[in-house]
Amino acid sequence: MDTRDLYERGLKLRKELFGTETVEKRMHSLGEFGAPLQQIINAYIYGDVWSRSGLTLKQRSLAMLGITAATNHLNEFRVHVQGALTNGCKQEEIREVLLLVAMYCGVPSAIDAHRIALEVFNAKPAGR
Amino acid sequence: MDTRDLYERGLKLRKELFGTETVEKRMHSLGEFGAPLQQIINAYIYGDVWSRSGLTLKQRSLAMLGITAATNHLNEFRVHVQGALTNGCKQEEIREVLLLVAMYCGVPSAIDAHRIALEVFNAKPAGR
Amino acid sequence: MDTRDLYERGLKLRKELFGTETVEKRMHSLGEFGAPLQQIINAYIYGDVWSRSGLTLKQRSLAMLGITAATNHLNEFRVHVQGALTNGCKQEEIREVLLLVAMYCGVPSAIDAHRIALEVFNAKPAGR
Amino acid sequence: MDTRDLYERGLKLRKELFGTETVEKRMHSLGEFGAPLQQIINAYIYGDVWSRSGLTLKQRSLAMLGITAATNHLNEFRVHVQGALTNGCKQEEIREVLLLVAMYCGVPSAIDAHRIALEVFNAKPAGR
Amino acid sequence: MDTRDLYERGLKLRKELFGTETVEKRMHSLGEFGAPLQQIINAYIYGDVWSRSGLTLKQRSLAMLGITAATNHLNEFRVHVQGALTNGCKQEEIREVLLLVAMYCGVPSAIDAHRIALEVFNAKPAGR
Amino acid sequence: MDTRDLYERGLKLRKELFGTETVEKRMHSLGEFGAPLQQIINAYIYGDVWSRSGLTLKQRSLAMLGITAATNHLNEFRVHVQGALTNGCKQEEIREVLLLVAMYCGVPSAIDAHRIALEVFNAKPAGR
Repeated sequence: MDTRDLYERGLKLRKELFGTETVEKRMHSLGEFGAPLQQIINAYIYGDVWSRSGLTLKQRSLAMLGITAATNHLNEFRVHVQGALTNGCKQEEIREVLLLVAMYCGVPSAIDAHRIALEVFNAKPAGR
Repeated sequence: MDTRDLYERGLKLRKELFGTETVEKRMHSLGEFGAPLQQIINAYIYGDVWSRSGLTLKQRSLAMLGITAATNHLNEFRVHVQGALTNGCKQEEIREVLLLVAMYCGVPSAIDAHRIALEVFNAKPAGR
Repeated sequence: MDTRDLYERGLKLRKELFGTETVEKRMHSLGEFGAPLQQIINAYIYGDVWSRSGLTLKQRSLAMLGITAATNHLNEFRVHVQGALTNGCKQEEIREVLLLVAMYCGVPSAIDAHRIALEVFNAKPAGR
Repeated sequence: MDTRDLYERGLKLRKELFGTETVEKRMHSLGEFGAPLQQIINAYIYGDVWSRSGLTLKQRSLAMLGITAATNHLNEFRVHVQGALTNGCKQEEIREVLLLVAMYCGVPSAIDAHRIALEVFNAKPAGR
Repeated sequence: MDTRDLYERGLKLRKELFGTETVEKRMHSLGEFGAPLQQIINAYIYGDVWSRSGLTLKQRSLAMLGITAATNHLNEFRVHVQGALTNGCKQEEIREVLLLVAMYCGVPSAIDAHRIALEVFNAKPAGR
Repeated sequence: MDTRDLYERGLKLRKELFGTETVEKRMHSLGEFGAPLQQIINAYIYGDVWSRSGLTLKQRSLAMLGITAATNHLNEFRVHVQGALTNGCKQEEIREVLLLVAMYCGVPSAIDAHRIALEVFNAKPAGR
């Protein structure tokens, strides 16, 4: 497959998951300097890995919440809370992942993640 | 609820997930010194967090694979690959989580996790 | 022991360590969504682990400063600087832990922790 | 060598790398409490390790960008982007290191580092 | 560019850097299960990121030593010590990166990395 | 103070803490390549930071157990369990630190640390 097609497929999926405005704002903020990184994100992550069969988008979101909360990458976690809501995760399901993070990665990461999740929920009251 | 009941409920679930022999061997290896830690694991993790409704055991396993691979805790990851197979995860589903880990946590953690997963699969050929 | 008693015992200790106002503000900020996490924090961490004999509160604080600075969990570190002052740690003792962090975890974590510690000291001039 | 000489040599190099004003502001912000940490930074890091032969300052900067971006220490990364520009790194070279970070440590750390790097570039347009 | 060409280009470079035998052994050990991960490694990492202009292979190696030692990924670090020798790094240059790791990430990671580096040097006495 | 005196003072303290044989074996294993790292360890860590007043050796050990267990640096943790026993820590006190690690850094790190601690205790039955 041509990497340009991979890029287009990934960008389309990414916008469906997180919203066109959010994605364009994030891409714009890194400008031309960030173009090779956008290639990685759009083509390789969303065009390839996220576009694979084998897990539903909701299952991927549950794993992503665990991955990003466990590594305390809060900006990325915030984006994936939005994606999880889009993919049909309920707030209660998101919380269950964070309780696993509390016990397997320690409570400080879980507290940080709770705070971010609540900010997303409150900014998007229809998200549930 | 009494913490002794929490402990018994958790220990029972833990044995269902990972096998009686594995759990008893792990508990025995830490001896009396490890008793307070076993209280945390059996009562608080498996008796409380894992016993909650809100996610299926399979969904919890998918999140756990992401959490333990992301933090490169390979001994714990190994246990949760076994648990994931018990909870109905297919090898292909486990792999999809590890590909997310590759892109969001870097390939070294994903390579380590692939190796451990294959060791579990090969030791337990009926696990798929 | 009943987990509700564990919870009450932990909440009481937690307020003694960090101040009633601080604890209530933190609990309130996570709301009902955060109730299961508060169960972990109040009952299991402060009601069980911190309530054990075996170390004095001051010794626990010294260990906690090392643990939270080493993992660069700055929000949690801030809380435990306050707790350390309550438990009788002098500013000089807190600094010694951070110098160990500098050499065993690298100077960037130690610089971050110095900054937070000074913010706590300056907000609470009688804390020494 | 006397540690005071090591300190003076390191402080001089540090100011050349990051600018006198930046270094003095950072030292001042930690005050007397931070004096032993400044000893580590000035004497041991810049007076000893950075003053060694074996690598050019530009090569050290490339390694430092990788080290600080990989560990997501963004305050320290920011300082070393400035140092890298001083040591003759081009923006394009800095980006290449961050693309390695993306693949070996995951994209969230790379995104954070891109953002900080752009802030430094934009604050210092003659830096390229 | 077609992703199959990216894959071939990357695999070729990877073998030049680390040796054909090492690469084939590593690819074989993950088998068919590891095929999608090999796609990421061969096509995206070595076919794209490592094949970019902007840094020499030696400069990339210096950054990689810092990145993998800083994150304590010792298996990956071992591979990149071999790659660094291939790319013309001297043992003394490798050591300088590890001394930076000692001060910015703590001595335990630097001790681990020294041990691995010496194992590679001793297995390959002509590597210097 | 001359850095050679710092080195000698640190080496002497280090041997008192961990045993002459252990220290010489560790220094020997890194050979001449490791000499600059030994300078950091002996002169800067043990000759300076550990030789400061402000905390007793036992208090330093309690902090070190937390720091090294929290970052899952198991080789270094093992050494500091030995040092903690030398400095008068009881096995029960060491365990209390590890229970804090369980809750603030997650149980996988605490399980690893329990295992190493028991190995040290069993190799040195008079250490309690």
